[in-house]
Amino acid sequence: MRSRRLVSARHKVVIIGGGFGGLSAARRLKSVPVDVTLIDRSNYHLFQPLLYQVATGALSPANIASPLRNILKRQTNARVLLAEAVGLETQNRRVILSDGTLDYDTLIVATGSSHQYFGHEEWAQFAPGLKTVDDATDMRRRILLAFETAEREPDGAKVHALLTFVIVGGGPTGAELAGALGEIANDTLRHDFRKIDPSQARIILIEGADRVLPTYSPRLSAAARRMLEQLGVLIRVGAFVTDVHPDSVTIRDGQRTETIPTRTILWAAGVLASPLGRVLCEVCGAQLDKSGRVIVEPDCTIPGHPEIFVIGDLANFSHQTGKPLPGVAQPAIQQGRYVARLIEKRLRREKMAPFHYWNKGNLAVIGRGDAVAELSRFELWGWPAWLIWIFIHLLYIVEFQNRLLVFIQWGWFYFTYDRSARLITGQSPLPLDL
Amino acid sequence: MRSRRLVSARHKVVIIGGGFGGLSAARRLKSVPVDVTLIDRSNYHLFQPLLYQVATGALSPANIASPLRNILKRQTNARVLLAEAVGLETQNRRVILSDGTLDYDTLIVATGSSHQYFGHEEWAQFAPGLKTVDDATDMRRRILLAFETAEREPDGAKVHALLTFVIVGGGPTGAELAGALGEIANDTLRHDFRKIDPSQARIILIEGADRVLPTYSPRLSAAARRMLEQLGVLIRVGAFVTDVHPDSVTIRDGQRTETIPTRTILWAAGVLASPLGRVLCEVCGAQLDKSGRVIVEPDCTIPGHPEIFVIGDLANFSHQTGKPLPGVAQPAIQQGRYVARLIEKRLRREKMAPFHYWNKGNLAVIGRGDAVAELSRFELWGWPAWLIWIFIHLLYIVEFQNRLLVFIQWGWFYFTYDRSARLITGQSPLPLDL
Repeated sequence: MRSRRLVSARHKVVIIGGGFGGLSAARRLKSVPVDVTLIDRSNYHLFQPLLYQVATGALSPANIASPLRNILKRQTNARVLLAEAVGLETQNRRVILSDGTLDYDTLIVATGSSHQYFGHEEWAQFAPGLKTVDDATDMRRRILLAFETAEREPDGAKVHALLTFVIVGGGPTGAELAGALGEIANDTLRHDFRKIDPSQARIILIEGADRVLPTYSPRLSAAARRMLEQLGVLIRVGAFVTDVHPDSVTIRDGQRTETIPTRTILWAAGVLASPLGRVLCEVCGAQLDKSGRVIVEPDCTIPGHPEIFVIGDLANFSHQTGKPLPGVAQPAIQQGRYVARLIEKRLRREKMAPFHYWNKGNLAVIGRGDAVAELSRFELWGWPAWLIWIFIHLLYIVEFQNRLLVFIQWGWFYFTYDRSARLITGQSPLPLDL
Repeated sequence: MRSRRLVSARHKVVIIGGGFGGLSAARRLKSVPVDVTLIDRSNYHLFQPLLYQVATGALSPANIASPLRNILKRQTNARVLLAEAVGLETQNRRVILSDGTLDYDTLIVATGSSHQYFGHEEWAQFAPGLKTVDDATDMRRRILLAFETAEREPDGAKVHALLTFVIVGGGPTGAELAGALGEIANDTLRHDFRKIDPSQARIILIEGADRVLPTYSPRLSAAARRMLEQLGVLIRVGAFVTDVHPDSVTIRDGQRTETIPTRTILWAAGVLASPLGRVLCEVCGAQLDKSGRVIVEPDCTIPGHPEIFVIGDLANFSHQTGKPLPGVAQPAIQQGRYVARLIEKRLRREKMAPFHYWNKGNLAVIGRGDAVAELSRFELWGWPAWLIWIFIHLLYIVEFQNRLLVFIQWGWFYFTYDRSARLITGQSPLPLDL
């Protein structure tokens, strides 16, 4: 009943997930004679690479999020549904939503990933991760409340714990968060408090590998380390979290175990693929890797189901290098476009070569004038990398208005060190209970 | 113990509330030899007159909110505490916080007001009001979810209820919300949906008096009515809400009772003073009016307590016109400055004339090019009033950066009708359960 008005003779493409992969597939299908339905739990596309800037008060959520309907409003063969996919009937080619069903001829699953706690889901409440807008505003609230509570706390040991920030995971997100926290403590809040000195804050970055940014070259890792240390970040490599409590985190570093009193633990480690991977495993017999990602064929389909594509973070595509592609925007965007072109070719009964990822390079930013860039032919760090980072990120933000607003806010921030979006919103606006 | 480090020989001024009144008092005390402590439950000053633009997706919360610490960072005689005042000990001159105490020599209470449901507090969950940033993002979520849910709803009657928006209260906030909703339905969402036509939305504005904007002149009320009707708003004057349900609102209009099926009821009626008014009544014997406001002396103190000032929305100051001053920004700002000057004069053992409110005029905006302005010597409506409204509001936003960002977003919005901050965030991101 629900879909009666949507019955159409045209080939129906359903895309689950409006992230980089799903959205680029939907847009590339604009001139293809198919009916596109994009479903997402959120009503916006999120520019996740800048989410840490929302978590640290430099940007507002709306600056890095664009309503999906707005992006696709002029694409008459596409519609957007705010819905959650929970299952699949492959015989009937039907997606099961939490509140209905949806028929497809071709399905693109692009539901991405979230963070995982390696079997310790109970840590999540004390050590939040950063995947959604609500995660970011929650993290922002925790960071700001820690300084506010320290200002009012008479007990020196508690002040010390309140001004200790532990970031778990030394990949790009962890390094970016640590760098931003360093700037907040040293510059942004410099004149804000009367009792505490924010520059006394300890920012501890914990990484299990033997260097930060372990997926980058050792030379760039070393550069990132120097930049972080200049911002006052304490780096602990070869260290693993063994326990998380509301007021401390325990780490193991070789044989040594240490408990660090802290009130703010930020989780930037561990990728867990979306639960739809498990659905695909159960329903279509798709193979999953140990992070829950779906192992896909060279054309991004799952074995035995040429009508089902899995792209982006949810996919494990290892045909090119023997290793899965990195869980960043570029592979997802390129796979989305590839899959859309493949659908177009199939309609014309043409063949297409397997997907090939063109690695344009990797970028991570630490602070002002501090970034590292791994490009296809050379490496850069410091100012040149930082300028490239800014240029690329502004270029890829979907909406022109947001590009302008982000540019102005970055310019303002650059000259004044002021992060204007330092709002404590949401639940428990009052100081942390100690 | 808690305040040991704060003991000082200087006169201690404690200000409760960082709104227009409290903040203007704090800033005016900059060069006065006193120690100022500003306490607030939020860490930001909110530019409330533009809150409806956050509720309707035109601006982000951070555009109209500035961290209090940032505003006062260079004012060395002022400190900011994130805290909630819950009581008072007048003999000891001590404010009781939810988690401590704070001594004062002079106290300024400026905790404002919220909305009231005239004894039906159970309506609040279905008919939210608009006083805080969280109220605004909640309202934004409800409005956007109503359209999203309607797009997926097969039952025509339910679609009709989902596309019916009822705004209770035809004062400036209600008129501004109704006008913004009219623009959203007619322009912003025009190409966004495939099944529903947002311009079919019914926006109903309910006002108990015999005209909208009843505090303005009849001529301006009539102008506002024409503007609203051009945006498709249905106006019901002389009507009162008698019941609120999750899926309907019942109104009485003379002898007639009518139940309107709707999923979105926005409350813009009824002022209730902050609970600190009742504390002042119990502790100092202050008189309250029927809205819970504290009746103050000509110098904004409460009778018998020259060391306690009450200003802004929480105060009922009737010495000038026989009626309380309106609950808007200007009286609060002027009272804050007056009280600060009075404190300065008292330190010098000088006298000061009673407070006198200089009414600079009143402004309400309905839509693009549509506003009404009641100035001291003349009245304006349409474009001239709208341009004055924009100029005044940009001028009064505290931070320069926000002024710039708001200006750009308004410019963008003006030319594209695009409200870019249309994010559904917070709890229950999925469609309303019908």
